[in-house]
Amino acid sequence: MTELQTSTLLSQIDRPSQLRQLTPAQLQQLAQEIRETLIQTVSRNGGHLAPNLGVVELTIALHYVFDSACDRIIWDVGHQAYAHKLVTGRRAQFHTLRQYGGISGFPKRSESKYDAFGTGHSGTSISAALGMTAAHSLKDSPCRAIAVIGDGSMTGGMAFEALNHAGDLAKNLIVVLNDNEMSISPNVGALSAFLSRKLSTKSLMNLKKEMERFVRTIPGLGTNIIQIVKRSMDSLVTFFTPGMLFQALDFHYIGPIKGHRLDRLIETLRTAREIEGPVLIHVMTEKGRGYPPAEIDPTSFHGVGAFDIATGKSLKSELKSPPSYTKVFGDTISRLAYDDFKVVAITAAMLQGTGLECYSERFPDRFFDVGIAEQHAVTFAAGMAAEGFKPVVAVYSTFLQRAFDQIVHDVCLQNLPVVFAMDRGGLVGEDGPTHHGVFDLSFLRIIPNMILMAPKDENELQHMLKTALDHHGPAAVRYPRGNGYGVAMDKNPETLPVGKGELLREGEDILLIGIGTTVYPAMEAAQRLERQGISAAVINARFVKPLDQDLIFDWARKIGKIVTIEENVLQGGFGSAVLEMLQEISFSPKSFVRLGIPDTFVVHGPQSTLRNLYGIDADGIENAALNLLNTRDGQILHAIGQVARR
Amino acid sequence: MTELQTSTLLSQIDRPSQLRQLTPAQLQQLAQEIRETLIQTVSRNGGHLAPNLGVVELTIALHYVFDSACDRIIWDVGHQAYAHKLVTGRRAQFHTLRQYGGISGFPKRSESKYDAFGTGHSGTSISAALGMTAAHSLKDSPCRAIAVIGDGSMTGGMAFEALNHAGDLAKNLIVVLNDNEMSISPNVGALSAFLSRKLSTKSLMNLKKEMERFVRTIPGLGTNIIQIVKRSMDSLVTFFTPGMLFQALDFHYIGPIKGHRLDRLIETLRTAREIEGPVLIHVMTEKGRGYPPAEIDPTSFHGVGAFDIATGKSLKSELKSPPSYTKVFGDTISRLAYDDFKVVAITAAMLQGTGLECYSERFPDRFFDVGIAEQHAVTFAAGMAAEGFKPVVAVYSTFLQRAFDQIVHDVCLQNLPVVFAMDRGGLVGEDGPTHHGVFDLSFLRIIPNMILMAPKDENELQHMLKTALDHHGPAAVRYPRGNGYGVAMDKNPETLPVGKGELLREGEDILLIGIGTTVYPAMEAAQRLERQGISAAVINARFVKPLDQDLIFDWARKIGKIVTIEENVLQGGFGSAVLEMLQEISFSPKSFVRLGIPDTFVVHGPQSTLRNLYGIDADGIENAALNLLNTRDGQILHAIGQVARR
Repeated sequence: MTELQTSTLLSQIDRPSQLRQLTPAQLQQLAQEIRETLIQTVSRNGGHLAPNLGVVELTIALHYVFDSACDRIIWDVGHQAYAHKLVTGRRAQFHTLRQYGGISGFPKRSESKYDAFGTGHSGTSISAALGMTAAHSLKDSPCRAIAVIGDGSMTGGMAFEALNHAGDLAKNLIVVLNDNEMSISPNVGALSAFLSRKLSTKSLMNLKKEMERFVRTIPGLGTNIIQIVKRSMDSLVTFFTPGMLFQALDFHYIGPIKGHRLDRLIETLRTAREIEGPVLIHVMTEKGRGYPPAEIDPTSFHGVGAFDIATGKSLKSELKSPPSYTKVFGDTISRLAYDDFKVVAITAAMLQGTGLECYSERFPDRFFDVGIAEQHAVTFAAGMAAEGFKPVVAVYSTFLQRAFDQIVHDVCLQNLPVVFAMDRGGLVGEDGPTHHGVFDLSFLRIIPNMILMAPKDENELQHMLKTALDHHGPAAVRYPRGNGYGVAMDKNPETLPVGKGELLREGEDILLIGIGTTVYPAMEAAQRLERQGISAAVINARFVKPLDQDLIFDWARKIGKIVTIEENVLQGGFGSAVLEMLQEISFSPKSFVRLGIPDTFVVHGPQSTLRNLYGIDADGIENAALNLLNTRDGQILHAIGQVARR
Repeated sequence: MTELQTSTLLSQIDRPSQLRQLTPAQLQQLAQEIRETLIQTVSRNGGHLAPNLGVVELTIALHYVFDSACDRIIWDVGHQAYAHKLVTGRRAQFHTLRQYGGISGFPKRSESKYDAFGTGHSGTSISAALGMTAAHSLKDSPCRAIAVIGDGSMTGGMAFEALNHAGDLAKNLIVVLNDNEMSISPNVGALSAFLSRKLSTKSLMNLKKEMERFVRTIPGLGTNIIQIVKRSMDSLVTFFTPGMLFQALDFHYIGPIKGHRLDRLIETLRTAREIEGPVLIHVMTEKGRGYPPAEIDPTSFHGVGAFDIATGKSLKSELKSPPSYTKVFGDTISRLAYDDFKVVAITAAMLQGTGLECYSERFPDRFFDVGIAEQHAVTFAAGMAAEGFKPVVAVYSTFLQRAFDQIVHDVCLQNLPVVFAMDRGGLVGEDGPTHHGVFDLSFLRIIPNMILMAPKDENELQHMLKTALDHHGPAAVRYPRGNGYGVAMDKNPETLPVGKGELLREGEDILLIGIGTTVYPAMEAAQRLERQGISAAVINARFVKPLDQDLIFDWARKIGKIVTIEENVLQGGFGSAVLEMLQEISFSPKSFVRLGIPDTFVVHGPQSTLRNLYGIDADGIENAALNLLNTRDGQILHAIGQVARR
């Protein structure tokens, strides 16, 4: 019966304005219902559980106080917008969360008018909200923009840039600091330590009151002196609370307040709404709130796959799956660091995600978590490299986009030996367009001095890491999200010859050139083609830069018909590098098709679905090869690459 | 006689350790000599004058106190390292400053062992110095790293990321905040306002002393109370001084101290050297110090061309030169903003540099200077676009590299109509590799939804700006540093058809496809070829994306021999886009050469010299065409593009 009752309220909420018709008790009940829905849905579909459980009351309070038909709520990083989606008309579709064709795990402007700004990477919310606030001001609109940002995101420089500008602009921006003392893993950084000083706030407040009482009892003290002492004590308290930092940036600071007390939240947000100028509300929340396994281990429940609600245990059978690329990276880097004192590892708040847990325990002195600060991470690495160390920046491909300029100037221009270990290169699946790492081959290969490789399997990954560390200059290794193939691992990581690919299969009719994740599918396609009487040669390019000109040209000349396959955008990508190389040696193949991601942002969905969609799996490669072989030489036809991409 | 005397000391300084042999009076004299040398050299060669005049004493003090054979001094932004160059063995070459083949205007590791880290863009110094500090700590080295950073750079988020990490690491990093209350133009931002509060420090200190004296006279107050009041007053003072912000980040704060008092500087730096943990020394300097015209107008003397020392007036005759692209941008954007209330302009601390002065005076409400904060600038623009405005982000191409991720996610993924007006696209000349904007065509064209164009002349620039503003999505216009051609300006900016180039010249023997700055040289080359009996067609592509497939294919098919020319890296650039397009329609030209910047960082030097060096001027295009026509079709030769690039 409880079950039935709890689903009653949420099922009636079609738009956020309806929240204002609920009593305080009903709002509490709604929070409970939302939590249950979140747990149930994420236990099936996977997703970001702990962050969303932490902001249920905050979400309700925001939509209760603000008019989201006019006011804009921007969810920083975006992965805590599930409750927001539930109360903004997407309840019925919520079961499709993160599924192919279903609703996104992040705010998305094209999905709902209530998603005021799409987010996915840290620290953009204040900038976007400030832009909207400036726009409202120019339009004389009473609408407000509210940025909801975690304490982790606050370590990103962009958030600071926006706070600094907001203080200067002095418009009516509202920033809600959602402080759970965690980003994805527990926060690092002086800012975090500083925010924690709030623990002492209460005792300071008591001290202040006592002092004031005491001073009043002293005979002979005039009102002025009492006032001065009082003000001194105020500033003393402020100094020891987080408000100081934000007040320094000309924000009106309110807090810290408890983030799971709806009455307090609503009252505070109402107050904030009436204040002129920028306001920061410091809200304390608990990640995973209301689901004991997530409360106990919020890091593991930050982002999860399907799990059993009763136990919190993952439903994915880990028993026989091959190791993930992430794990192979972590293991290899530990081995290489054991052999070489100069190897150090750097992460931007992604200790677990990048597989550095064991490494960080074994080599705590040589492990640096810099906070959500990719720009700093890269230049910090360059600084260490300038002193003779071999820094490995372990980072998701999509987040490395944040540090493009630092890679160009601080690493490559100075030709410093920094290794970029780029996890989640290519299509990442359910996290969708903000997380796919499909631009890296293009934006890294344009930088002089950089070498760039992608392994065909987990064994090659260990060799490439070794190769990158042995290289006297910048080197990037890009590998995918997910498990390897379970291939035998060579006993030791070996240095590969830089700029050399490998011929995996000889052939006469068509040449398939794969890189990274597309090599095995190319091999499979070649086997299928063989059964149809077609002989396909397969090259594993290994290096996007420098390309193995000798090998590729040799086989290109022999066969004349070429298909390149990459899990990257076609613009300026691996296939283009091959095109450029052949042009530079003035060789025109008879036919040439590039398979890859077309000029569009890729939606969310299972990796296999997306790879099939864009024709970069065995099916797609086989089809492309067959079509290419049916194309009469010299005739101008729309090549398969084009067709596959529709 | 004074002249002779003043040159005496500096001429004896071959390495910084020699400074320690000088008396205080001699150090003063050296400062004077350095100033004279700076003024003389920059008045001839151009360069960054005001910032360098501001740090003469600081430079001497740093090299006096620290052992630069071991300690590392990192100059943020790098344009204030002239005095550093003079005292670190480059006195004799100093007259070649910023000249082709001469010494760089920025620190450069390959130029001197004393240039510990190359810099050029803002806010990297703390990250690099912290990386070095971490390295020193791992090596148990007593060496220290010192970041010298301006208050302007402090508004960049990266500096904050590094401060946050430094506070956490708690190593012996030294940060010298060079506070001249200016970045390039006067600072904006709450941080800047906050730093200015120091003006009231003195009166606060007096107040504090009086208070303490007074409290002691009150009968009946115990020592405890007096101590508490004293401490309250201390925190009150700290609250009103800039120290607060840095102390919040766990830095030991010293200052503010006067930056032109050598004795105070030396004493303070010595103190700082002995402190455990991160230290921030707040130094007040005057930009342009010692040269009255620069003291009066430090903004104009931030970066200058050759000038007359007596008057401070520019030696460049401005009389008859055509308007700069920067000016045409500024004029056009003012016109378009006059016509359309929704046009707003955003700059990241480059009001003058981007030509927005007049605009900002005419439309102060629609002008936003966000500080040195490109990431925030782009997302702020996206926020305004989401509310229906048409933001124009006016930025140097090289600085836009800082915001790559924000362009991808916040603008292009959401398909928001933000216009990027990229000044200084291509080779910028004397500022060299940290400032050339030669990657933009490559890194922007890989982003879905972006359109990307480059004008052949200043008249086309106005039309492209109009076109960009009329486009319902992200649009980038890239134009060069320097003056236009003095072509007639059409009366009104007109909207160009998106994705359409123009045929400038018909021809039969060879097809030259230019973009932006390479179009006129292509025309000139075509005229020269005509005199040699060769008929060259010339296309002005206008758009890098979308390419004019119809026009290019039409002429490519007719002629079969193609040269593309771009002032951008060849990797993934405009020529690659043409290659990709022809491949996608399965068309193989008889021969194809791409001219552009090869896979190397380009040194500093005059734009014309560099363009000639890489064969992208009329000479280079003519030669490439002649060589291409001598190449037998189908034969595999190293194409001209390769040769020209050696």
